[in-house]
Amino acid sequence: MKFLGLDIGAGSIKAGIVDEFGFVEDESIKITHSRMENSDFQEALKTIITPYLSKYELSGIGLGSPGPIDIANGIIFSSANLPKVDKFQIKRILNDFTKMEIEFNNDANCASLGEYYFGEGKGSSNLFVFTLGTGLGGGWVWNGKLFNGFEGNGMEVGHTTIIRGGALCGCGNLGCAESYFSSKGLLARYKDASLSSLPTVKDFFEQVRIGDENAKEILNFGVEVLAEATRNIVNLLNVDTVVYVGGLSQSWDLFGDNLEKSIRAKVFPVLRDRLQIKKGKNQAILGAVSLILEKRNHG
Amino acid sequence: MKFLGLDIGAGSIKAGIVDEFGFVEDESIKITHSRMENSDFQEALKTIITPYLSKYELSGIGLGSPGPIDIANGIIFSSANLPKVDKFQIKRILNDFTKMEIEFNNDANCASLGEYYFGEGKGSSNLFVFTLGTGLGGGWVWNGKLFNGFEGNGMEVGHTTIIRGGALCGCGNLGCAESYFSSKGLLARYKDASLSSLPTVKDFFEQVRIGDENAKEILNFGVEVLAEATRNIVNLLNVDTVVYVGGLSQSWDLFGDNLEKSIRAKVFPVLRDRLQIKKGKNQAILGAVSLILEKRNHG
Repeated sequence: MKFLGLDIGAGSIKAGIVDEFGFVEDESIKITHSRMENSDFQEALKTIITPYLSKYELSGIGLGSPGPIDIANGIIFSSANLPKVDKFQIKRILNDFTKMEIEFNNDANCASLGEYYFGEGKGSSNLFVFTLGTGLGGGWVWNGKLFNGFEGNGMEVGHTTIIRGGALCGCGNLGCAESYFSSKGLLARYKDASLSSLPTVKDFFEQVRIGDENAKEILNFGVEVLAEATRNIVNLLNVDTVVYVGGLSQSWDLFGDNLEKSIRAKVFPVLRDRLQIKKGKNQAILGAVSLILEKRNHG
Repeated sequence: MKFLGLDIGAGSIKAGIVDEFGFVEDESIKITHSRMENSDFQEALKTIITPYLSKYELSGIGLGSPGPIDIANGIIFSSANLPKVDKFQIKRILNDFTKMEIEFNNDANCASLGEYYFGEGKGSSNLFVFTLGTGLGGGWVWNGKLFNGFEGNGMEVGHTTIIRGGALCGCGNLGCAESYFSSKGLLARYKDASLSSLPTVKDFFEQVRIGDENAKEILNFGVEVLAEATRNIVNLLNVDTVVYVGGLSQSWDLFGDNLEKSIRAKVFPVLRDRLQIKKGKNQAILGAVSLILEKRNHG
């Protein structure tokens, strides 16, 4: 069986063919631009999909996108990276174009299912996946089933309070986890401390590597906050496996050990002893295709 | 149909007959003492149960107890109010005595199911119940089913971090919600601030009523922490109804309005607009009997 996976990311659409064993082949990337409107975005999607439709007999199409989205109606309301895209009816448009059902969800949920079916969460009966990206997201797969929450809003772990009265978050509240461990959060805290701006979180981690004291301190504090957020999830949901994915997880060597040590010091022993803490495999195409498996297994 | 509900509380065992509509009758109370050992506790249970066995044709027995317990094996490991009771095999003992199956769970889970079936959570498809007692507990009923977590440890909402580096909690961590809003937490914070001890949380609320500035400030701060803990639950689990039960909820008039206002200022609008915030009905006997309904509906 061949599935088509589509991942809408920051600055591009990625596509690839996946078989039922999670083997990925024939990948391609279509660059997107911030000036794209609905019609341009639609053209870009058709351009990347068209070759796959003629070359393969597809058994399903899965698609992941950053929020805010409406899963049930298949709508991308807006996109931080595509500011001119507005209420884009992605499910209907792709359904008309491909004559196939499209499985659609937000990128954090896709990443969680992807780790469950094909990554570091395989075999877990209670898995939480943190998405460490521009923001801080999360997804929960319990007894093999994704928790979608209300209209697919579920698991806003980035917007849980860890430090009451702490740093101002983009959501308007104070002390959210996202304000301390996400690209946005780390860069904002660095600016507070050093009064100088870094363009991207890669530059931030580069500062940590070259020994910038401000950057090191902010990372260490962020790790403590992420450990508290993880503690809260473990104590609440009794998860047996926590996996971290997303752009920031590529710098796992700079914080993974400290994160694990801090989490293990904080959670209840009965939950700690069976807890697995891992950096994820991070394959967005597999995440998108996992939506098709979720649909088949749980309707 | 007649069910027998049993509630093991601080200082007593309560019993009552409940019909399928939630009408409670024929209630009785057996006082317990801190010097009771396993055999005395067993006698007390038999004494309160015996009259019901001869008087009614029972369709089920439900029993709630404070933790730590083992739901699957029906064991009360220990009890804060019965320090000499140790690994009490309550399910086997009552099963032998009554020749009936015993449905058994911790008091926070019973309270949650009780609000779902007979109280302020009726009709909710995503209900969280906070238990405001000696500690701070919680239970989640999602699509009509209780979330038990790993070996029934679930939902340790009192031990989620709200103020990183905050007050020392009984669990050994800093800044847990329970350190700020529970009998233990409010009394400890009052002692920190005023350097004088109050014997019970009733005395604490009495100080609030007579205008003690320390007590008022500590209550207001505790309410803010409870609002943050509630925000975290709403943003994570997308619950549509939050209900507060337990001893401290009897002083709802002193904090309920502030709590609701603070929660509504913090949660995402899409979740806030449908959110119900209520003081519970707080009927422990109904909670215990709800376990029988849960078993029938969900096995």
